[in-house]
Amino acid sequence: MHYNRHFKPPETGSTPSSNLTCCSTQAMSPSSTRVVDIHTHMYPPSYIRILESRSTIPLVQKFAQTSDPRLILLEAEVKSLDEALQNPEANPPGRPLTSHYASLAQKMHFMDTHSIDISVISLANPWLDFLEPAESGAIAKSVNQEFSSMCDQHLGRLFFFGTLPLTATLDTVLAAVQHLQTLKHCRGIILGTSGLGKGLDDPDLLPIFEALAKSKLPIFLHPHYGLPNEVWGPRASAEYGHVLPLALGFPMETTVAVTRMYLAGVFDKVPDLRVILAHSGGTLPFLAGRIESCIMHDGQLVREGKASQGRRTVWEVLKEQVYLDAVAYSEVGLKAAIQASGADRLMFGTDHPFFPPLTSDEQGEWESVSLNAKAVAQAVGKDTEDHKAIMGGNAIRILRLDDKA
Amino acid sequence: MHYNRHFKPPETGSTPSSNLTCCSTQAMSPSSTRVVDIHTHMYPPSYIRILESRSTIPLVQKFAQTSDPRLILLEAEVKSLDEALQNPEANPPGRPLTSHYASLAQKMHFMDTHSIDISVISLANPWLDFLEPAESGAIAKSVNQEFSSMCDQHLGRLFFFGTLPLTATLDTVLAAVQHLQTLKHCRGIILGTSGLGKGLDDPDLLPIFEALAKSKLPIFLHPHYGLPNEVWGPRASAEYGHVLPLALGFPMETTVAVTRMYLAGVFDKVPDLRVILAHSGGTLPFLAGRIESCIMHDGQLVREGKASQGRRTVWEVLKEQVYLDAVAYSEVGLKAAIQASGADRLMFGTDHPFFPPLTSDEQGEWESVSLNAKAVAQAVGKDTEDHKAIMGGNAIRILRLDDKA
Repeated sequence: MHYNRHFKPPETGSTPSSNLTCCSTQAMSPSSTRVVDIHTHMYPPSYIRILESRSTIPLVQKFAQTSDPRLILLEAEVKSLDEALQNPEANPPGRPLTSHYASLAQKMHFMDTHSIDISVISLANPWLDFLEPAESGAIAKSVNQEFSSMCDQHLGRLFFFGTLPLTATLDTVLAAVQHLQTLKHCRGIILGTSGLGKGLDDPDLLPIFEALAKSKLPIFLHPHYGLPNEVWGPRASAEYGHVLPLALGFPMETTVAVTRMYLAGVFDKVPDLRVILAHSGGTLPFLAGRIESCIMHDGQLVREGKASQGRRTVWEVLKEQVYLDAVAYSEVGLKAAIQASGADRLMFGTDHPFFPPLTSDEQGEWESVSLNAKAVAQAVGKDTEDHKAIMGGNAIRILRLDDKA
Repeated sequence: MHYNRHFKPPETGSTPSSNLTCCSTQAMSPSSTRVVDIHTHMYPPSYIRILESRSTIPLVQKFAQTSDPRLILLEAEVKSLDEALQNPEANPPGRPLTSHYASLAQKMHFMDTHSIDISVISLANPWLDFLEPAESGAIAKSVNQEFSSMCDQHLGRLFFFGTLPLTATLDTVLAAVQHLQTLKHCRGIILGTSGLGKGLDDPDLLPIFEALAKSKLPIFLHPHYGLPNEVWGPRASAEYGHVLPLALGFPMETTVAVTRMYLAGVFDKVPDLRVILAHSGGTLPFLAGRIESCIMHDGQLVREGKASQGRRTVWEVLKEQVYLDAVAYSEVGLKAAIQASGADRLMFGTDHPFFPPLTSDEQGEWESVSLNAKAVAQAVGKDTEDHKAIMGGNAIRILRLDDKA
């Protein structure tokens, strides 16, 4: 399998060896210093084969100009895909499809290299959003089963967020939720912002949200679609690489999606629903105050009684129904996230296998990981209870990771 | 003039009477407690007449169903404009055009009510972005002159940000910059994100940025266009009022615009350029870490040498060339802004005449103002040097407001 050919066998065993917790010189009980990565993706081999069979995004494409096949996911990459297919001099879009995307051994090596004790793995975007309705139910079942089997191979070190066949009928989706309840390592579902095609404020999603709440399966809300290309302007695709759609489009998409859920009353209608927001909430912690003010000052919402004091505020939702990953890449962002949701609601993540190092060995330590670990240490202090909580304790409690049954 | 008919004569004199500085019980020298509002708009009467003559946004429109004419500015309002014109039962879009938009006496009353000593007034969005090229030069000159005359009437209490005729020829725009240098109360320019129509990363803007830098006229970068309507989904226009385009679209637009400037190297190419970002930077303080990481991990930028260490980082630009207003409506947002740029670079603002109170007298105190004042007090403490700096001292120093000559 070509997507495995870069994998070098891990040189370490399966005992974490590195220094993410910043506490290696101290004697600590294993339970207090466990590091959990809740934002870590895989494309299992069967999913890669689906991508290889496609001619529109998402797809895996070979190019004359590069040895690696390329994984092409984003709308912003389509223009350069066409150019690269027509012109063998042009740089192909996307990212090289290395073993980091599909190899479980590689995932374990990554965990060991970065002292990660437990990972809650999830299918990467765009999940099953693009599948034909007739096939998506069966593929979801098979993919979820595949994730479950991976967890079986590393009992106690791997859990997973399942995936729903959202292009199928409601009954098929609800059956998938039931199936996930039978998979003992499943700890929630990963969900994009498209929902059934009309966004997460779509009332047709309510039965699905209710089923998830009843099953105590939190949603890991993750971006994929970004913002329309026109927002980036005429120079972006040629000159700025992926920076605008990834750095801005992704977190803004998440923020829009969760704010639409909020305005549609989803959090009130399904009070037991729990949502983990990727990338520390997108930009929600920073914008929550402005959202609240805009609601209070909106003529229509005031007229309709929707802006009134009895309403549960965005701040309350952030502290009661939302969790945030700690993938903000800065102390500034992380402190805002902590102040908005509480240090007991943030959970460390890596976003592996995305953002590999480009100027050092990708079998070694990843700067994208250490940036986030450093931000946690800066935001709450290295040897604090909050540090242990964010690096692992919160995830163990919230996602019941000590419960292997 | 109908847009003045709501104005009640101020009951106070022109001495600030209220309590925004939170220090009214203490004896303090006037210089140390002056409050400055750098984010406060007007549509002078001549500009209102232009809006009244138009049939597409921006426009002022009368409706059978409301006594007030309505000010309709946003793309997101167009759909309900058409509905309201066809159906006299439908609620008209936009906002009532009250005296707060065009009356200088009303502006002074607002300042007195909120203990604002000095305001740096600016034309509100969408400025002159929609004018025919042939007319925009003369209209810019007249509007800037009108703002200058308003400042003359309240010497020392009013300064202004000028407006450029960006749809005209480069020579006309540069002549406008020269004209602003002759207007002694001008302290910068207000600028939207469209620039010459292709965004602020357009190289054709560089001579204008250079002229502004040479004239020591900072840019007050302000949103107007938001994000494409499709981002808000099918329910937004009927159910969520203006919340999504204003609460999310505006700050996201600012963030995209300044990030495009950064990626185009504008801050390096014009090192003396200074940019004041509206709404505490949109979301830039929260996302700066992610932007940095995405640059460092972008294959194309690394290959082209644009991601290298020698580059001035987003953090450095935030601390050296960017200022932020303090219009974030929350302690969380404001603390992130302060940590990103420094307490010596934030400047209080109100966004008057937008966000008037809807359930209390709009001649009294505005909650949208007190929310921001409270956020400053929460973020830095009530009686601190940082508090005085953000509420007024920074603006006086940065915008030379003690220099009346």
